[in-house]
Amino acid sequence: MASRDTATPTLFDVDVTPQKRSAKKKTTRKTAAAKGGKKAAASKASGEGSGGAPRRRSDAQQMAAKQREISVSEFFTKNRHLLGFDSPLKALLTAVKEAVDNSLDACEEAGILPEISVEIRQTSEKTYLMAVEDNGPGIVDTQIGKVFGKLLYGSKFHKLSQSRGQQGIGISAAGMYGQLTTGKPVVIRSRTGKRKNPVEFTLTIDTARNKPEIHSEQVIEWDKDHGTRVEIDMEARYQKGMRSVDMYLKQTAIANPHLTLHFKDPAGEEVTYERSSKEMPPETIEIRPHPHGVELGRLIAMLKETSARSLSGFLQEEFSRVGPTVAKRIVDAAGKGLTTKSYPSRIAREEASALHTAIQETKISAPSTDCIAPIGEDLLLSGLKKEIEADFYVASVRPAAVYRGNPFQIEVGLAYGKPGGVGLEVTETGRITKKDKSKAATEDLVGSADEPIRVLRIANRVPLLYQQSACAVTKAVTQTNWRSYGLTHPRGALPIGPMAVVVHIASVWVPFTSESKEAIAAYPEILKEIKLGLQECGRKLGTYIRKGKRLKREFEKRSFIEKYIPHIGVALQEILELSDAERDATVEELEDVLHKSRKF
Amino acid sequence: MASRDTATPTLFDVDVTPQKRSAKKKTTRKTAAAKGGKKAAASKASGEGSGGAPRRRSDAQQMAAKQREISVSEFFTKNRHLLGFDSPLKALLTAVKEAVDNSLDACEEAGILPEISVEIRQTSEKTYLMAVEDNGPGIVDTQIGKVFGKLLYGSKFHKLSQSRGQQGIGISAAGMYGQLTTGKPVVIRSRTGKRKNPVEFTLTIDTARNKPEIHSEQVIEWDKDHGTRVEIDMEARYQKGMRSVDMYLKQTAIANPHLTLHFKDPAGEEVTYERSSKEMPPETIEIRPHPHGVELGRLIAMLKETSARSLSGFLQEEFSRVGPTVAKRIVDAAGKGLTTKSYPSRIAREEASALHTAIQETKISAPSTDCIAPIGEDLLLSGLKKEIEADFYVASVRPAAVYRGNPFQIEVGLAYGKPGGVGLEVTETGRITKKDKSKAATEDLVGSADEPIRVLRIANRVPLLYQQSACAVTKAVTQTNWRSYGLTHPRGALPIGPMAVVVHIASVWVPFTSESKEAIAAYPEILKEIKLGLQECGRKLGTYIRKGKRLKREFEKRSFIEKYIPHIGVALQEILELSDAERDATVEELEDVLHKSRKF
Repeated sequence: MASRDTATPTLFDVDVTPQKRSAKKKTTRKTAAAKGGKKAAASKASGEGSGGAPRRRSDAQQMAAKQREISVSEFFTKNRHLLGFDSPLKALLTAVKEAVDNSLDACEEAGILPEISVEIRQTSEKTYLMAVEDNGPGIVDTQIGKVFGKLLYGSKFHKLSQSRGQQGIGISAAGMYGQLTTGKPVVIRSRTGKRKNPVEFTLTIDTARNKPEIHSEQVIEWDKDHGTRVEIDMEARYQKGMRSVDMYLKQTAIANPHLTLHFKDPAGEEVTYERSSKEMPPETIEIRPHPHGVELGRLIAMLKETSARSLSGFLQEEFSRVGPTVAKRIVDAAGKGLTTKSYPSRIAREEASALHTAIQETKISAPSTDCIAPIGEDLLLSGLKKEIEADFYVASVRPAAVYRGNPFQIEVGLAYGKPGGVGLEVTETGRITKKDKSKAATEDLVGSADEPIRVLRIANRVPLLYQQSACAVTKAVTQTNWRSYGLTHPRGALPIGPMAVVVHIASVWVPFTSESKEAIAAYPEILKEIKLGLQECGRKLGTYIRKGKRLKREFEKRSFIEKYIPHIGVALQEILELSDAERDATVEELEDVLHKSRKF
Repeated sequence: MASRDTATPTLFDVDVTPQKRSAKKKTTRKTAAAKGGKKAAASKASGEGSGGAPRRRSDAQQMAAKQREISVSEFFTKNRHLLGFDSPLKALLTAVKEAVDNSLDACEEAGILPEISVEIRQTSEKTYLMAVEDNGPGIVDTQIGKVFGKLLYGSKFHKLSQSRGQQGIGISAAGMYGQLTTGKPVVIRSRTGKRKNPVEFTLTIDTARNKPEIHSEQVIEWDKDHGTRVEIDMEARYQKGMRSVDMYLKQTAIANPHLTLHFKDPAGEEVTYERSSKEMPPETIEIRPHPHGVELGRLIAMLKETSARSLSGFLQEEFSRVGPTVAKRIVDAAGKGLTTKSYPSRIAREEASALHTAIQETKISAPSTDCIAPIGEDLLLSGLKKEIEADFYVASVRPAAVYRGNPFQIEVGLAYGKPGGVGLEVTETGRITKKDKSKAATEDLVGSADEPIRVLRIANRVPLLYQQSACAVTKAVTQTNWRSYGLTHPRGALPIGPMAVVVHIASVWVPFTSESKEAIAAYPEILKEIKLGLQECGRKLGTYIRKGKRLKREFEKRSFIEKYIPHIGVALQEILELSDAERDATVEELEDVLHKSRKF
């Protein structure tokens, strides 16, 4: 193919012409290229002049003129799949999730027991309106624009504390997606207190500038003392199933037992998940970074920004787990003429580097872990029992641990056995009976005995529904030896059986593999903790399954003996010349003896 | 656990105290919580007042005060794994890749045959300096700061044209990573022409503001007419292997036959990949978006921004493939009182929505595909032959296709057979001989016969080394039936055999699954084209493998017959009383007849 090199500065205009023409005349690629080639040949010979000035298509000046800033909204509009808006089905779930996460975070921060209503309504063949309303603290008027109309804006990014949101992108991105696909603005209603006016905003995002464009702002009537409501119309698809809005809400109810949640689906069906606990999760405390998790560059920036006036003060104020003794130990180890009284902002790179090395080499207690709010064993169990029908439940809460200086805690819950299946139970009188649970849940979280188990992943109380195979939780489940607990377990896959496993990670910074927060990165420390939690539950499951197998065998034996007891009664009646009443009493007694003698 | 609800506005300060204390006194979580609980109880009773004002931990005003903007640099510093800087090993590769990609893009845009030098030097136990120098057009002084010190800045994001970079993040992020881990600034050297002064900048990024901080800027001596050099010192790990810098550079040479590439590794070993072609890739043309790929929100924004003064003009100027006839057809189908003369910026949402529907329903030619610059069959083959040692090579270039309005083109290359293995060839005289290739390449791209095949993925001439299993290319290879081409192929896995497959996707917008551009999203159209390309190569491979098997059998038969020819010669000599010379001539003739009679 001929080279199209040319020095003409107007090349761009020239070269676009054959393309335009080809668009109309359907000229093929080859002829267009040939034309370009001829043009280039006509103007100047091609090829690089290795000694002289190069023949350029475009020079540094021309290239500079084309450089420009890209707004983060433009970036994420074009790359919206990174935020979870890659298909209409997923977009709807992502939008609901972002809105509900925000509501829950706000309620907890304000100390309000959350009551949230979610409604999805079809607005046209391909569009749905999502409305999420909470009883949270509301949002002050001046912030509404930025919270819903600006990406990378929020209160959670800069602090180390456990919250659902952490990026300041989610809800604005949902609005941006709605705007992109339907052209309609987001509608926000908010009231911050009984004595404040309820207001309603409509706004869109100016994506080129990443700024809100407020279309209207007015005082309205609202029979709510405080709260926020957001409505987004968007291209979407609604369907039930494992990755549906329904499933997300159900799992949200499990992970947030203090939440009352109402849901109205597009068919008008309503469901309410009542709270099972009136106890708020403990307030999450913001912590300072742990010294071992800080990079050199960050340390240098912190030294510059600090208000501390001595190195020792700096280390104690800006980091957790550093007292005067540890601070002195670090400074002494650093050497380079540094003293505990060195003035932080005057420390040069070389000295900072020595300080950084000294920090890494000094023994410092692990980060405090009271900044984490796990669900807790009791609430996790009651949540499981309330929302998942099964025969056996167990939960385990691991002690807090640390990855890269960030505290985290793992909780594992497990529900086993499909009601209506083999389900057997020992009654209070010692009788074994088949369970009377015939109602089949519409969306069973416990699958049938020949299916892979269901894995529910929850991060900071938010259920994760996508990218299961890329997630540390799935890896940990797959790598655990379930065979020793009585399940079938093909190598490298999920175990098989009527079981659901719930894994919750609570952390001040959950390491997600993408902005859409769908999977947890497999840090070794995290993998290890999940596995330990799974093993704890697994051992109890093993005992239950073995007992279940015994129960089943026992039940068969008893049925067998029971079958013959009446005949024995008749035989005894004949031999001992009993009356019918005496015979029946004997039979009853025999049955009683049988049950008592074979108790567990 | 006691609820810590309280109305004290200074709660935050109060609550931090027990944590600080616990840090020093090792108080456990429980006691800290108990303290908090006592405090809360002492101040006010907890719980939600459903009728009255809620008792709040924090109200809307307090929460508003904490809201702030997050700079995109801060965001990606904290989430640097999203950009490929998650481990020291990968960070080094990512940094080299971003620098080389930029050099190649600049050279091509300027029409310069690229010659690039990459050097990696160990600077301390855990740090390496990466230096990448090109002979490109250089960067004008006023742009250097922003190009290297500002995320989301560049010329490639806003245009639809094939280039390696597309985000305006990469090289600045590499510098930011270096700065974060070593505290050292990036050093940039640039010269835009023989008559311009070479300059050297040192700069860091002000991450809180996403702005460059220029430390020094000076005119220097440089024996280069034009070019750019960037040096970044960073925490890194260097090692050879499938995902190494070495492998990336080798594959870059295959994908860019017009590139001369020098590499000096930390051990001081130097390798040069000489260009195999002096032909520049055809210049990539910027195209306008195709109407079928535009969302309603984008259409509304375009209607507002356009300089066109009629709807018909707007459609023709802003989109590709729309002429007056198609424009009229769209406008007529839209109805709603719209005419070809309607003034674009006055079109309301409802009308724009009708217009959007009409666009989707109107038949419009597929996008022009001359904006794509594939490598080409010949160059791909010669690249393969130059860098991969194998017995059999084949390449296939698919016609251009379209996903979501974006043109793309797939090229597939295949190298089969390990030299030094069974390698047999038919000489010109028809003799079958074992190949004389004993040298074993240090980094074989063709594995051994019992290993899975190697898959090389290239997007817009950039090799992708990570996230192989998440990539459309891997999916397509796995889903192709390689058994019918003579390979062993376990279900759901890569086929087994001494083979390397190269797949190149060229597009104006490659849909990557993450910012780090490591895997291609599996759009159905892309999957289909890759599979078709693989099948084309596969069929030729099948023929070769079958022929190879025949050759092998033949070779065995011949060896067998050849073994006895001398004995036949001796026997004939005895029977026919031949002289030794006659006998030898007969033997030679017999061998000749044997070879000729069993030709392929």
